[in-house]
Amino acid sequence: MTDLPPHPSYAPHPSRSPLSRTELDLVDAYWRAANYLSVGQIYLLDNPLLREPLSGEHVKPRLLGHWGTTPGLNLIYAHMNRAIRARDLDAIYIAGPGHGGPGLVANTYLEGTYSEVYPAIGRDEDGIRKLFRQFSFPGGIPSHVAPETPGSIHEGGELGYSLSHAFGAAFDNPDLLVCCVVGDGEAETGPLAASWHSNKFLNPARDGAVLPILQLNGFKIANPTVLARISREELDRLFEGYGYRPITVEITDPEDHDAAHQAFAAALDEALDAIAAIQQAARANPDSSAEAVERPRWPMIIFRSPKGWTGPKEVDGKRTEGNWRSHQVPLSGLHENPVHLRQLEEWMRSYQPEELFDAAGALRPELAALAPEGDRRMGANPHANGGLLLRDLDMPDFRDFAVDAKTHGVTESEACRVLGAFLREVMVRNSPHRNFRLVGPDETASNRLGAVLEATGRTWLAETEPDDDADLAADGRVMEILSEHTCQGWLEGYLLTGRHGFFSCYEAFIHIVDSMFNQHAKWLKTTRHIPWRRPIASLNYLLTSHVWRQDHNGFSHQDPGFIDHVVNKKADVIRVYLPPDANTLLSVADHVLRSKQYVNVIVAGKQPALNWLSMDEAIAHCTRGIGIWEWASTDSGQDPDVVLACAGDIPTLETLAATAILRRHFPELKIRVVNVVDLMRLEPDTEHPHGLSDREFDALFTRDKPIVFAYHGYPWLIHRLTYRRTNHENLHVRGYKEEGTTTTPFDMVMLNDLDRYHLVIDVIDRVPGLADRGAHLRQEMLDSRLRARAYTREHGDDLPEIKDWAWPFE
Amino acid sequence: MTDLPPHPSYAPHPSRSPLSRTELDLVDAYWRAANYLSVGQIYLLDNPLLREPLSGEHVKPRLLGHWGTTPGLNLIYAHMNRAIRARDLDAIYIAGPGHGGPGLVANTYLEGTYSEVYPAIGRDEDGIRKLFRQFSFPGGIPSHVAPETPGSIHEGGELGYSLSHAFGAAFDNPDLLVCCVVGDGEAETGPLAASWHSNKFLNPARDGAVLPILQLNGFKIANPTVLARISREELDRLFEGYGYRPITVEITDPEDHDAAHQAFAAALDEALDAIAAIQQAARANPDSSAEAVERPRWPMIIFRSPKGWTGPKEVDGKRTEGNWRSHQVPLSGLHENPVHLRQLEEWMRSYQPEELFDAAGALRPELAALAPEGDRRMGANPHANGGLLLRDLDMPDFRDFAVDAKTHGVTESEACRVLGAFLREVMVRNSPHRNFRLVGPDETASNRLGAVLEATGRTWLAETEPDDDADLAADGRVMEILSEHTCQGWLEGYLLTGRHGFFSCYEAFIHIVDSMFNQHAKWLKTTRHIPWRRPIASLNYLLTSHVWRQDHNGFSHQDPGFIDHVVNKKADVIRVYLPPDANTLLSVADHVLRSKQYVNVIVAGKQPALNWLSMDEAIAHCTRGIGIWEWASTDSGQDPDVVLACAGDIPTLETLAATAILRRHFPELKIRVVNVVDLMRLEPDTEHPHGLSDREFDALFTRDKPIVFAYHGYPWLIHRLTYRRTNHENLHVRGYKEEGTTTTPFDMVMLNDLDRYHLVIDVIDRVPGLADRGAHLRQEMLDSRLRARAYTREHGDDLPEIKDWAWPFE
Repeated sequence: MTDLPPHPSYAPHPSRSPLSRTELDLVDAYWRAANYLSVGQIYLLDNPLLREPLSGEHVKPRLLGHWGTTPGLNLIYAHMNRAIRARDLDAIYIAGPGHGGPGLVANTYLEGTYSEVYPAIGRDEDGIRKLFRQFSFPGGIPSHVAPETPGSIHEGGELGYSLSHAFGAAFDNPDLLVCCVVGDGEAETGPLAASWHSNKFLNPARDGAVLPILQLNGFKIANPTVLARISREELDRLFEGYGYRPITVEITDPEDHDAAHQAFAAALDEALDAIAAIQQAARANPDSSAEAVERPRWPMIIFRSPKGWTGPKEVDGKRTEGNWRSHQVPLSGLHENPVHLRQLEEWMRSYQPEELFDAAGALRPELAALAPEGDRRMGANPHANGGLLLRDLDMPDFRDFAVDAKTHGVTESEACRVLGAFLREVMVRNSPHRNFRLVGPDETASNRLGAVLEATGRTWLAETEPDDDADLAADGRVMEILSEHTCQGWLEGYLLTGRHGFFSCYEAFIHIVDSMFNQHAKWLKTTRHIPWRRPIASLNYLLTSHVWRQDHNGFSHQDPGFIDHVVNKKADVIRVYLPPDANTLLSVADHVLRSKQYVNVIVAGKQPALNWLSMDEAIAHCTRGIGIWEWASTDSGQDPDVVLACAGDIPTLETLAATAILRRHFPELKIRVVNVVDLMRLEPDTEHPHGLSDREFDALFTRDKPIVFAYHGYPWLIHRLTYRRTNHENLHVRGYKEEGTTTTPFDMVMLNDLDRYHLVIDVIDRVPGLADRGAHLRQEMLDSRLRARAYTREHGDDLPEIKDWAWPFE
Repeated sequence: MTDLPPHPSYAPHPSRSPLSRTELDLVDAYWRAANYLSVGQIYLLDNPLLREPLSGEHVKPRLLGHWGTTPGLNLIYAHMNRAIRARDLDAIYIAGPGHGGPGLVANTYLEGTYSEVYPAIGRDEDGIRKLFRQFSFPGGIPSHVAPETPGSIHEGGELGYSLSHAFGAAFDNPDLLVCCVVGDGEAETGPLAASWHSNKFLNPARDGAVLPILQLNGFKIANPTVLARISREELDRLFEGYGYRPITVEITDPEDHDAAHQAFAAALDEALDAIAAIQQAARANPDSSAEAVERPRWPMIIFRSPKGWTGPKEVDGKRTEGNWRSHQVPLSGLHENPVHLRQLEEWMRSYQPEELFDAAGALRPELAALAPEGDRRMGANPHANGGLLLRDLDMPDFRDFAVDAKTHGVTESEACRVLGAFLREVMVRNSPHRNFRLVGPDETASNRLGAVLEATGRTWLAETEPDDDADLAADGRVMEILSEHTCQGWLEGYLLTGRHGFFSCYEAFIHIVDSMFNQHAKWLKTTRHIPWRRPIASLNYLLTSHVWRQDHNGFSHQDPGFIDHVVNKKADVIRVYLPPDANTLLSVADHVLRSKQYVNVIVAGKQPALNWLSMDEAIAHCTRGIGIWEWASTDSGQDPDVVLACAGDIPTLETLAATAILRRHFPELKIRVVNVVDLMRLEPDTEHPHGLSDREFDALFTRDKPIVFAYHGYPWLIHRLTYRRTNHENLHVRGYKEEGTTTTPFDMVMLNDLDRYHLVIDVIDRVPGLADRGAHLRQEMLDSRLRARAYTREHGDDLPEIKDWAWPFE
């Protein structure tokens, strides 16, 4: 990277005046129109163009929404429109302060997109009335930049993810510019603070550009913001340290709109010129795929402007413009307070609506002409409705990667390593389309997916050293940063703009993005009911290095609760898979990579483990999602005495080992082994589309026989899924009950009573008539536990007979 | 803040040589001893001092642990010891790379603390043997800097929280120095990236100091780190931008230990001199409590040293020292690979153990003398076992803050505002002890706890402006930053060092810290079994602005699932409360502020709501945690026909309104109203210490009558808690089923079928014999829903009869 250059400062100054007098007047009028429509949405039920004096009956009974951030968002949008037209840019707009929804709705209305996707909201006075009324109104639209908002890929309600979404959108979209407004409140969050470093992963030759605009409004809900209250010099150094070239626009006189527009236009021109120069230089290099690409110093804009700009200066004698008091609704109680009502009218009339809209209520043509046309409008850009651009992955035949499992439970594989070979081939086939990436927090190799790195590199535009692995590459498609937040944000941005991806993560630490998952699941749920939104590729998680095999790290790395978190979200968008071995993992992975509009969670171990099913068996089993393993059962299709159910690789191993012990000691006991791959099969079909009917469930689990269920995670989740089933009162679940440390794998299952010996005891204790006959075996099992523990504590390892155990009945 | 000064650079250079030849030799020997003991823990079962040639039988069968970060941690510890002795510092050590557990165990062993708390691990050869064997060994100790490690308040397994923990520890401990090592992997995480800004909240006069040491080892598990691969200039600017004065130590020749020690000692002296000067200047100011305090430019150290320093240079021809390959166990397969075994022996002998330990295996006295004494040892510092210092809060009588509720359900209060007055008094009484703080992401006022700001200010050491609220203050005790991660980290650090606190948060966004909660709950669970750890104050959450009243924000702000997440953790550390009104909230808040060693979750609304219980009733109700509201019931102590249960303020309102409708239409129907404050009462007493016995549960809920349960959150949680209860099959739960948007409060409950009309229908559908008699009312309820919805869609507000409803039966 080159030395840090001095950077220009764009305080408003007449010498930097890219706009002519006419352009100034027009852009200011456009801004006023957007501000007017924003205020109107928050306040008005009727009299939308103030054709008569404002009265209380024109005002909404409940005033909801956020004014503070909106005028800044509107100014940026107006200037971006100018730049798009001047430069024929392909651009989308991400509003980090997503609560500035009125602004984005107003702008997409002004440019015409809104009326195209919502024809009921026409471009006339009646349309404006409806536009105002529907905002934050029952039966209307949400207050944020929600999925309902054209051009949005970012709801922005939960702060912190705008910039990682922006970079995710830019990857592999070389012609795209993502204008990303970051609020100074959002900038205090952890995920946002980390995501500035995304510039070390953006390839100027192959990817698009992100233009971050830090909107320094100075205040959050009730406090100043940190970044607004450090010195200008510190602020500049911070962003230079993050690797950017900050260009500052500082609004010192809120009344001088000419100066403000000139300054912002000059800054935007400067930034866009810099981006064009960076891209041109990088793309002129024929070796653009190699490490030869140097990380550029991308521009960013620091835009210091008043919160609630152009709103009421004071309300009830208290400063409001430029203060936290304008965060939501600066004027309230309008039905009781005629002074406030007058203030609202004055405020709205200050935008001179009569100059902006014609007699019919349409935006005047000279203003309408300022917006870009067609898909160039940011509200209509197809990247922001990524399903429009989605191309199915070119999938290899996963059966080609099958492991040998002709005999059940004898050979071993590392399931994730097998998956890695499959993903390598997916990567190879789709590299020409540049629409598939893997993300993960530094764990691709640790999670044994390293084969992918034979097909592509790890994205890296920071410095390299001679001893580095050769797979660090500017055009790598495996993205690793030790920030689950950034990984998730990148992937969401990538998926939302119509591409595919796969996130592998330590199981325990996926909780770091619980809240991001929530927001994405809510987005998917909502978009299912928006006809113009096209389905996007699913968000696929592989959770590995799981609770049962945290040999190096222990208790802090043991938490299987992400599944519990996921199943609280709408059934039509979430799926959970627990493939018990390598071939089932392949089948599941193939399925999820072809799916759309879901969040798929796969939990699978990375350690060497027995192969239970041949590929044909695996496909049949995964297709059903749940099934009887007849080769392991002894009920011969009859009514069993007991059902041993299992979900997850380790529980399957222990269940099969328990089954083997029981078969040896009670050859006449009719055991049925049921394995669950698709966890949602357990729910009633009235609750989840994958749910079994009660008839099907009863056919597997019986209506009255004991069920001993060995589950990968917290045991009560199985009860939560099955409490309505006929035989629920005979269901006994073992799982992780929050006991663990750094110890051996078998000691871990013993600590949680999930071990084979305990499962045998559970069967003896529950099958009628077995208590007496089984007393001896029960004692033997207790002794075996003690022996296993004693051996482990002496030798620091599991008993050889446990480590080397294989299924003995073929 | 003063202008940015030029900063010194401490590349190793002979002109900066604070250490004499003797001191150099001693500190290096001490470092070698710590490194030796670290390697020994990872590898050896026996032959701890290499008194005989190393053979396979001396080596552990499973090699677990992390070497890479350890030598750096050890060097810092040794130099901190020197500084503590030289300056009589009161210091604790936080190891961000907590997987460097062997290093911290080694150092606390060398200083003697370890043998004091674990007498079985003596300071002789046998003690060293046991020390080695127990590490990451079944029945032994975890691999991380866990609660078992003396001097630790930070496990460090989940990366990102070291610095916020460090600042939390430093607040209100003016004489404490927190040495906080931040790994360059951890530095990529969001929470860590945000927490550098904690320096805007640290008061040099009243708080202690944090010395961050960024350990630039260059590599994560398999990748370079971002901060190690940006230019020196960018790195400096980044930390200058964050407000620090970086002092760099760069190890260019890993073999030149003299130079390394001199450079680090010089940097540490420089940093500690700067801290002393800052504190002296701030404390010389008599007006140290006011805004007069200027934010200083605190020093930090950037310590660029090789990963796995002093370990094997190469293994199998591949570079290992200074490479990611030394992250965990650089040499493996020792039982099969004699070359590796020889390499291990050479590596360990390179530390010259015979020079470090005497014939009995004790650390030589001239080295032992390098450690501080008594409580000055970082492993023995009482701040790191905060319960030792914990002083109970001086509590006002919460009854003094009661609201008038002599009649049930007629008067209204904003529960959080009432709580705010109580918290103000807690703040007033405890301000002299400086052991109580409120944290929250910019929501104290929004959550209507603003009364607290009458007693103290908002902590703020960044710039202020004339128009700011007067409550921004350098010595404020309300801490607001728009980072839930930082709030949580500060509070954890504050509690772990023996103080009290309270975290108020929007309900939906507490999920942002799901994973941090996990780690804290695990810490509490573990410490319950460590006798020398003293109980600390509970971590108290108030979740408000909850799912039912997100009027301004809608769907993205609606998620009541944190409770589901919490109840997965060990029953003996978690508590969940849903007080239905203001007086019960006061009673619960009083209880949790007096409790120890729990995580308490309180969910309560902030909007005006009916007061149900007088203070005496509230106390009785909260003491039981669950109970029949006889004044609302019509079963007159007899067997009821139906149980209407409720948990949470909005469900209680809807249940009581449904009860009123039912009473009017079916005066003979025996209705029992049960309200749940303490959610864990629903669990069996075998599962949770608060759980009701089956007998008690049956007495409340009957063994066979229909139960219609209106719950605040996801309804299936109630099933998960009660599936073992006799009457579970008659339990019907309503709650949030992930339907929402920006709409009216009553429309929200209707969207989720939790409204009074639907609850009446649920009763009609479930009480035997009511279907016919209730057919007319059922239709009326359906009509009422339609009417309510139509009104809302027309008027944008709820029906007056719903908004103004009050309990009519007194």
